[in-house]
Amino acid sequence: MDRTTVAGPPAGHLELAQLHGSLRDPLLDTMTFLNEVTARYPRAISFAPGRPYEDDFDVEEPVRDLAAYVAHLRGEGADEAEIRRTLLQYGPTAGTIREVVARTLAHDGLPVDPDHLVITVGAQEALLITLRALLADDHDVLLVTDPAYVGVTGAARLLDARVHPVAEGPDGPDPHALTTTLRDVRERGLRPRALSVVPDFANPSGTSMSVSARRRLLDLLRPEGVLVVEDNPYRLLGPAPHPPTLKALDRHRQVVHIGSFAKTLFPGARIGYVVADQVVHRPDGTTGTLAHELARLKSMITVNTPPLAQAVVAGALHRRDLRLGPATAGAAQRYASLMTLLRSELTRLFPPADRERLGVSWNDPAGGFFIALTVPFPAGPEALARCAEEFGVLWTPMRYFHADTAGDRVIRLSISCLDRDQVITGAERLAAFVRDEDERS
Amino acid sequence: MDRTTVAGPPAGHLELAQLHGSLRDPLLDTMTFLNEVTARYPRAISFAPGRPYEDDFDVEEPVRDLAAYVAHLRGEGADEAEIRRTLLQYGPTAGTIREVVARTLAHDGLPVDPDHLVITVGAQEALLITLRALLADDHDVLLVTDPAYVGVTGAARLLDARVHPVAEGPDGPDPHALTTTLRDVRERGLRPRALSVVPDFANPSGTSMSVSARRRLLDLLRPEGVLVVEDNPYRLLGPAPHPPTLKALDRHRQVVHIGSFAKTLFPGARIGYVVADQVVHRPDGTTGTLAHELARLKSMITVNTPPLAQAVVAGALHRRDLRLGPATAGAAQRYASLMTLLRSELTRLFPPADRERLGVSWNDPAGGFFIALTVPFPAGPEALARCAEEFGVLWTPMRYFHADTAGDRVIRLSISCLDRDQVITGAERLAAFVRDEDERS
Repeated sequence: MDRTTVAGPPAGHLELAQLHGSLRDPLLDTMTFLNEVTARYPRAISFAPGRPYEDDFDVEEPVRDLAAYVAHLRGEGADEAEIRRTLLQYGPTAGTIREVVARTLAHDGLPVDPDHLVITVGAQEALLITLRALLADDHDVLLVTDPAYVGVTGAARLLDARVHPVAEGPDGPDPHALTTTLRDVRERGLRPRALSVVPDFANPSGTSMSVSARRRLLDLLRPEGVLVVEDNPYRLLGPAPHPPTLKALDRHRQVVHIGSFAKTLFPGARIGYVVADQVVHRPDGTTGTLAHELARLKSMITVNTPPLAQAVVAGALHRRDLRLGPATAGAAQRYASLMTLLRSELTRLFPPADRERLGVSWNDPAGGFFIALTVPFPAGPEALARCAEEFGVLWTPMRYFHADTAGDRVIRLSISCLDRDQVITGAERLAAFVRDEDERS
Repeated sequence: MDRTTVAGPPAGHLELAQLHGSLRDPLLDTMTFLNEVTARYPRAISFAPGRPYEDDFDVEEPVRDLAAYVAHLRGEGADEAEIRRTLLQYGPTAGTIREVVARTLAHDGLPVDPDHLVITVGAQEALLITLRALLADDHDVLLVTDPAYVGVTGAARLLDARVHPVAEGPDGPDPHALTTTLRDVRERGLRPRALSVVPDFANPSGTSMSVSARRRLLDLLRPEGVLVVEDNPYRLLGPAPHPPTLKALDRHRQVVHIGSFAKTLFPGARIGYVVADQVVHRPDGTTGTLAHELARLKSMITVNTPPLAQAVVAGALHRRDLRLGPATAGAAQRYASLMTLLRSELTRLFPPADRERLGVSWNDPAGGFFIALTVPFPAGPEALARCAEEFGVLWTPMRYFHADTAGDRVIRLSISCLDRDQVITGAERLAAFVRDEDERS
């Protein structure tokens, strides 16, 4: 079609086919699905949402957090004009609370230089700016685990960036698959730039990497010149001691680390961060950091992370003595105990003989929100709708997180928003649905 | 260079030349410059920043705003669980406060359907998602006024989108230049998709469009199938009665309207919005709205606008009776009066004969933050540094906002952060600098 002469529809009418291609990718519905499915079936028990337990939230807390941060600023000698400017005016693009976040990360096992931090609107903006910096053109490839968090593949899609999947095994990205993918990508004349991975209690699979697998991954990628984008929002939500992050093991600046306070404090402030200590060599011979470049990109996305929301989070961190490990131990224990309960209920509901006959299986996360359950039927949106309407239980199709049809018979279950009774009843309803689907086929 | 075999630098070292091209575009430094230049010369009088007057800010206000919103939610029958979920949990992608914003916009002269709104992290995210939706590939062109707000050209650069400038005259985009550009763009086989314009007290030029120019612009673009992206954060910051927005004049859904509470309430919440009532026709024959598509894109950028920040803004709006016109009348009066003062000082400091001899001139905004001053020398960063260091006054080179070297001898002055004495002293210092530069050349 000659786009220059054929008259389109009237000005206020647009063809979806002529808007950006990402809008025709079902990927973009996944985030909305995750955000909103639970509201569509308010009476169902929901294993769907990846959101933290909210019954302990208190609307007075942000007020106390803000007061704590203001008191802290006063204690550091800030006058009232500086304080109101810090909270209410535009602020530095890289963030107002980098020092507070750096000290907290150090206490929780990840020493970082505040200058290597950018405070972002959730981990999502951190992912977006990291991919935008690293993926310069259509020769550049982002490797992602398969299945992958939809936020990383969605951000890449928005940027028209190439994504190649690498199968995830029980210990993280499969080294053989990774080596093969790297070779394939290079043989196609493309440049693998980074691998995105969630090493602790992965969304969506629940997989965690052993420390040796983490070291092996860094060793494998280092000579390839391929960075690791470590997306790690769940690391403190399992039993202590917490394994070292990929970034904590990194001696060669090969890891860009992304985190969030959405699961350790609360999501409503939408505060995330990225640690990017990579050295950037400019054409004039000078050097800077990747964090600096990420902040420059951020200036064209959100200008600043809301300074008021940053202040609330900084106050919350100060009130926890700049240590989230001890502060989240109770929540971590709660999630781990619900995960154990769900696994024991599944074991009870699907005895070994049934498991074998039906082809039902699951993995064994020690914490976090997610567990992957394999079922004997295609677990897509139709199955989900029937399960919600007839059995009163919700979950997420794993296929939403895969590059192809892998995961077609796997569902993601999240225990994060449920109590013990709901886990027990939900597992019973789910088992009834699985048996019913099996009998229908 | 064969990127597949040549070894690059070690993993933790990156070449700027191999990161995204936007990072080599000086455009990206402009936002950082605007954000941070004032901090670099703390003792200079600064006509540089585009930020609102902050001396009236009060750190207790967000606490009162939050309480007002909580009281409002309770009054509507929300229970405590719903309230804490609304403030502290993840929320709907399009926003939690669309109804409150829609009612406020209606009271201030712009009736909109809440379903056509998306609440964003400042106007910047609204610009980014609007451009991402409309600019599908490298055949699509965004037209921008020349000079243009750096946030719109920067967002386009991040998306590798094509931008063509349209000269701005004293009454907004020059109709002749616009017609010529449209023809040129189409002759090159490209598709003009939208024109971005700031119709009230434009950043950077200070220009406002007359009502007849607004109607003419809509009439000119309608048959072309080219949308208007109306970026209008300053409209209430001038003398009442405020002229109708382009969106208020729009009877054909040809305008996407973007606004912000950064200048009418305070920037630190970073709450903006986009009104997009365009009909989107899907391949299956169903229809939706552009607002819905924008929310889908937003889900991959920031997931949600911080619900806590939205709650603060909603409370602030309720405390102002959902009317920003009366609430900002005092601030608008203050800005208008400073603008009048600056113009009269310039008139005093540059008598007509001097003006003619030196080639000094300026325009005449009735409100807003910005005025454009033409000077007889190249007004780039070197001139700015000398002016700051030797004369103690800051401003912004207008060349940062132009597609080419136009604006090389123009500077942007903002009165928004100054008091009357600073405007008077700042104008005197600036005049001394202009005369000194003229004598040196």
